[in-house]
Amino acid sequence: MASPTMLCVTLGLLVLVQSCFAQLEQMPRQQFRPERQREMRSQQNECQLERITAQEPSRRFESEAGFTEIFNENDEQFRCAGVAVLRHTIQQRGLLLPSYSNTPKLVYVEQGRGFHGAAFPGCPETFQSSRSQAAGEQHRGFSRDEHQKVRQIREGDVVALPAGVADWFYNEGNTPLVLVQFLDTGNAANQLDQDFRKFFLAGNPQREFQSQRGQFEREGGRSLRRQTPGGPQQTYRNVFSGFDEQFLAEAFNIDTQLASRLRNEDDRRGIIVRAEHELRFVGPQFSREESEALEREESERERGSRGGRFMNGFEETFCSARLRHNMNDPSGADLFNPRAGRLKTVNSFDLPILRFLQFSAKKVFLYRYNTEFFGFLTCNQNAMMTPNWNKNAHSICYVTRGSGRVQIVSDNGQTVFDQEVRQGQVFTVPQNFAVVKRAGDEGFEYFSFKTNDHAEINQLAGRVSVFRAIPEEVLSNAFQISREEARRLKFNREEVTLFSPSQFGRV
Amino acid sequence: MASPTMLCVTLGLLVLVQSCFAQLEQMPRQQFRPERQREMRSQQNECQLERITAQEPSRRFESEAGFTEIFNENDEQFRCAGVAVLRHTIQQRGLLLPSYSNTPKLVYVEQGRGFHGAAFPGCPETFQSSRSQAAGEQHRGFSRDEHQKVRQIREGDVVALPAGVADWFYNEGNTPLVLVQFLDTGNAANQLDQDFRKFFLAGNPQREFQSQRGQFEREGGRSLRRQTPGGPQQTYRNVFSGFDEQFLAEAFNIDTQLASRLRNEDDRRGIIVRAEHELRFVGPQFSREESEALEREESERERGSRGGRFMNGFEETFCSARLRHNMNDPSGADLFNPRAGRLKTVNSFDLPILRFLQFSAKKVFLYRYNTEFFGFLTCNQNAMMTPNWNKNAHSICYVTRGSGRVQIVSDNGQTVFDQEVRQGQVFTVPQNFAVVKRAGDEGFEYFSFKTNDHAEINQLAGRVSVFRAIPEEVLSNAFQISREEARRLKFNREEVTLFSPSQFGRV
Amino acid sequence: MASPTMLCVTLGLLVLVQSCFAQLEQMPRQQFRPERQREMRSQQNECQLERITAQEPSRRFESEAGFTEIFNENDEQFRCAGVAVLRHTIQQRGLLLPSYSNTPKLVYVEQGRGFHGAAFPGCPETFQSSRSQAAGEQHRGFSRDEHQKVRQIREGDVVALPAGVADWFYNEGNTPLVLVQFLDTGNAANQLDQDFRKFFLAGNPQREFQSQRGQFEREGGRSLRRQTPGGPQQTYRNVFSGFDEQFLAEAFNIDTQLASRLRNEDDRRGIIVRAEHELRFVGPQFSREESEALEREESERERGSRGGRFMNGFEETFCSARLRHNMNDPSGADLFNPRAGRLKTVNSFDLPILRFLQFSAKKVFLYRYNTEFFGFLTCNQNAMMTPNWNKNAHSICYVTRGSGRVQIVSDNGQTVFDQEVRQGQVFTVPQNFAVVKRAGDEGFEYFSFKTNDHAEINQLAGRVSVFRAIPEEVLSNAFQISREEARRLKFNREEVTLFSPSQFGRV
Repeated sequence: MASPTMLCVTLGLLVLVQSCFAQLEQMPRQQFRPERQREMRSQQNECQLERITAQEPSRRFESEAGFTEIFNENDEQFRCAGVAVLRHTIQQRGLLLPSYSNTPKLVYVEQGRGFHGAAFPGCPETFQSSRSQAAGEQHRGFSRDEHQKVRQIREGDVVALPAGVADWFYNEGNTPLVLVQFLDTGNAANQLDQDFRKFFLAGNPQREFQSQRGQFEREGGRSLRRQTPGGPQQTYRNVFSGFDEQFLAEAFNIDTQLASRLRNEDDRRGIIVRAEHELRFVGPQFSREESEALEREESERERGSRGGRFMNGFEETFCSARLRHNMNDPSGADLFNPRAGRLKTVNSFDLPILRFLQFSAKKVFLYRYNTEFFGFLTCNQNAMMTPNWNKNAHSICYVTRGSGRVQIVSDNGQTVFDQEVRQGQVFTVPQNFAVVKRAGDEGFEYFSFKTNDHAEINQLAGRVSVFRAIPEEVLSNAFQISREEARRLKFNREEVTLFSPSQFGRV
Repeated sequence: MASPTMLCVTLGLLVLVQSCFAQLEQMPRQQFRPERQREMRSQQNECQLERITAQEPSRRFESEAGFTEIFNENDEQFRCAGVAVLRHTIQQRGLLLPSYSNTPKLVYVEQGRGFHGAAFPGCPETFQSSRSQAAGEQHRGFSRDEHQKVRQIREGDVVALPAGVADWFYNEGNTPLVLVQFLDTGNAANQLDQDFRKFFLAGNPQREFQSQRGQFEREGGRSLRRQTPGGPQQTYRNVFSGFDEQFLAEAFNIDTQLASRLRNEDDRRGIIVRAEHELRFVGPQFSREESEALEREESERERGSRGGRFMNGFEETFCSARLRHNMNDPSGADLFNPRAGRLKTVNSFDLPILRFLQFSAKKVFLYRYNTEFFGFLTCNQNAMMTPNWNKNAHSICYVTRGSGRVQIVSDNGQTVFDQEVRQGQVFTVPQNFAVVKRAGDEGFEYFSFKTNDHAEINQLAGRVSVFRAIPEEVLSNAFQISREEARRLKFNREEVTLFSPSQFGRV
Repeated sequence: MASPTMLCVTLGLLVLVQSCFAQLEQMPRQQFRPERQREMRSQQNECQLERITAQEPSRRFESEAGFTEIFNENDEQFRCAGVAVLRHTIQQRGLLLPSYSNTPKLVYVEQGRGFHGAAFPGCPETFQSSRSQAAGEQHRGFSRDEHQKVRQIREGDVVALPAGVADWFYNEGNTPLVLVQFLDTGNAANQLDQDFRKFFLAGNPQREFQSQRGQFEREGGRSLRRQTPGGPQQTYRNVFSGFDEQFLAEAFNIDTQLASRLRNEDDRRGIIVRAEHELRFVGPQFSREESEALEREESERERGSRGGRFMNGFEETFCSARLRHNMNDPSGADLFNPRAGRLKTVNSFDLPILRFLQFSAKKVFLYRYNTEFFGFLTCNQNAMMTPNWNKNAHSICYVTRGSGRVQIVSDNGQTVFDQEVRQGQVFTVPQNFAVVKRAGDEGFEYFSFKTNDHAEINQLAGRVSVFRAIPEEVLSNAFQISREEARRLKFNREEVTLFSPSQFGRV
């Protein structure tokens, strides 16, 4: 540490004094209601979690208009957290075919823009087209289409969906549409086993898509493909292919030739297909500003009536529920510290369906500063997230930009993770394990999926820290330090959650 | 396919046009409250469910006044769904002895009529006799009996009961009383293991009655009887037989001779005994019409105050809860299509205790028509149930009458079940697996137990189908079909859930 | 049985007649809300529970100012009930260091008095000192301390705490402070495995403290210590020891020397340390009478607003929740029979946080009488608890004083437990298993932890027994006894729950 360092510290300190009052408070409020009821994630107490490593996708397979990557669902962190992570990259005019799965899911739109449609059973088709159609299509009295709501999605959005509800995505932009899916296999809504299962309504999914967890466990932990009775040449098909063609014809009241198209038997396009023409959907044409205003309004309405709506479980329905929320909009941040970063949480207060789905999410932006002094002296000052532990949830973190250093500590004080993580990697912070994160030199942004709809952290340092709650005398005896030192532990860091560089940090 | 077939189709079509508007709507509404919290049904992801077969009882044992049959609880479908199925056949004047179990249960009355009594802890004895008794029984000041409510039950009823509550049944009719019991071993109310355990308060149950699931799993899947330490001659007894006689005498304040009768040690009558005289119970003597009117009234009252009653969990009690609901009454059908059949659902809207027990049930009647034309030409036209998947529940189906063809398809498009099922058989449709059912030539009636108190299906065809919710353009690209064909997929079948024969069906 | 016995019986009978009306009613009311959602406690149906034995601590380790004992968490009864039991004995001026764990817990104060502090995340520091401080400590502008509420605790109290919340205890009395902790490892709030995990914020816990359950199961049931990668010399440390010192310095904005004190690396004091000076905490100084009045008031206020508070899950917080309730106060008994004993239940009606934590507790005092007649004839008459079964919970019983004879019976009528238990022992009554308890010659007091927030028992004998609910005719046919005998079964014992000695008991 040379003298420029000292200078940085001193100058930085001046800035700190002014900025540390400029932040919002984050006072997570605990709720008096039964915590999420969750499956024990492990059989036979196998989740010792003595070593966690950052993961990149372990399988990738191509479709006509994009590709899909799967993070190894048998890695201990995912098995124990009961979550599987997938990433779809959908090219221009690509359509991710309609499917449903045995798990509720949260989809994070990492990049691009497009449309999302979900088919809720029993809900009306509320979007009705009055556009004139090609003349040849007017016969049979169906001159217009009708369907359930189609949502516009864009970078930074999350989309939440219950188990067993079919949905599809379409890329309407000029860049790839990248979707990171968190499948909550350990959710109580999943009454099947810990495999994620995707049931496609069209297309012929690649065999590689199938979850390998069940097969992995049956093989005693060796990672092999599931051998289904039909042998290796057997394909993984859409659900119609298992029904008799004659049954389908009768059920749909169509001829068997069309019924056979439902089975898509010779389709080799995979699960992401290219639309023949650009798709346009029925719906009001809003500008982005209008959409956002509308969304805010809906959200407030929903919030206003929440007491009645989401607690009694009887009167209200999914049919008009919002499924989408944006995590990137700086003006929507829950916590902002100009010298450290910002943070956005989405839980059932923002998106009420999450109360039903019993998970939530957070996006954190940790800044990195290059402060120049006198035009030539540059100080690298990286922000950090307070050391903390998740009180009631696992946290599955996906790095969306930059890099950061992360340490995770288990109950016996062991460092189970100490790694520089970078964009596209995933790591899990198990419930109660202590964690600290610090931005790398390009800053650090990550999205984290939490297995509780009101996930809470306990902070070890800062203005709302656990030490603030404990009397000085207890701390001084616990650590064998003086009262004055105990006071420094309690009061030296006035920021909340996101910390600007300290005079004592590495610069 | 000969020409009479073509004629049938044409004539049938005419009838179809007129009948397809005559049905009720079935718009299941989804709820905004946490889904049922349920145990993961499998250990070690063993529930691949790659082959399901219809089951008949695998064990049967006789009692003095009837017999009991058990469907093999180790069959994968039952283990994975966390449900065990039993059938009691109780002869005239037969009494199924009081017992309780570690699982909530739903009992379907397949045949006959009788009485049901349940002993809720802490509830008052609300039925008090003022009938004159035999003079010799007037001593000790107890000139009249008092007890909790005794319910009349009849064919088509379901009776629901929480775990740990004792109940008994009595056949008061002239035909056997046949009870099909669904024991929800996977229910969260069961804090013991996946065995069903029946605790008898009287009698000496047969050893064969004991669940073999635990023993099966410990033996690594070989189906042997549980070997308890006492060796093969050891009996399965009522709970009093494990207590010291002296303790019982003191607790009941009775002499040890009577205490020893509680242990029923030499009783060889089994679990269904013959009453010495016909039993008559204290209670208002209603005609059936009166009972039904009363029941409707109670049901409405309960419904009216439901918001307050069943949500807050504090003010209300089981003591006056209804436990019974009839599934056969045609006027109570939720959905009726004169050319296809009818359907009756019971969930917590109809029977509020189901919200607590977290399961529901459905009864489906699929018709078969012999339409005669010109007095000599007969067309066999069998109705079908829409292809669908259970969104949030397993469905355990018991065939009550007739037969039908059933196909079940898993996530990878494999047909895991394709069978003609008939009366008395049981098969399971796992959560999310797609299923189609078609009546056989005598029609097809089945009762299905659902592991969710608001079980919902997603229909693949018909007026509320998932395809209706999806834009035409998405379907046309997904299946590589024209817009016009996509429209046929969406709109060609206007019926809901129960479909009359189609022009394209097999006739 | 000699003639003094007969005399005792006769005299006792006279007393009985007068005392059996003197008791309170215990009418537990069942609730209409989903039962606790709970993990299935066993893997692979291993919980046959064919033999239960009373347990004493299996491990003990010393700290500077006390010692800790652990009941063998691998004993089948604890594994299957999903509960671990620990006992801390804290000497005068001893401080049990702040820690949190992955399970909610209930702490029973067996002896002594002291302070308890809990650090709820996001809650304000509501206790602020204005006492003058030593002059030297006034610098840096922190002339007074502030922290969250510190609670006084005393013998007979229970303290309840959610998973993931840190707390500490301090002995301020002259006798050891003995705490019995029930860790609810099977609680749905625990998303980790079935090990209990204690995360210490200070000190260096002894390795022996670590749960051995996971390791036990991995070893196939052989009881060995968990071998962590670091080898046998590896210690079990506080969570700070896993973080980089530099990170800690930066996060707390302190120098690295103080940061290194957080890691307490050379601390050999264990988890209970001796305070240098007697600790005094900020807070209003109440007399005991005032505290109790205050507490009653709080409790009533909380009760009054309960409907709104604890059901909606949104408006209210833990911040001001009561965590403490006394079980010993005779005036607070729920049921009292001067000739048999008394009983105190704490559930979510008394302590609303239990609804969130989903467990409850009961304390039972069974009396033993030496009745002297004519100045020389002494009758030993011991009270008993009604034979009963737990409807919806396991019951983990800790004997706090005296001794008693206990019999437990399983579903097949087998006696799985028949033992004289004494102070300091623990035994488990599994859900639905029938149990009878009788005081020994010094009386019998026990505390029982129940794995349901509204645990209910079904009584086999007495005024609210299951036989009262069943018609006479059913009993007479079930047991092949006369109507008059059936009536004796129903009506001979008029007491509720706690029974005074009977004329037919052993005297």
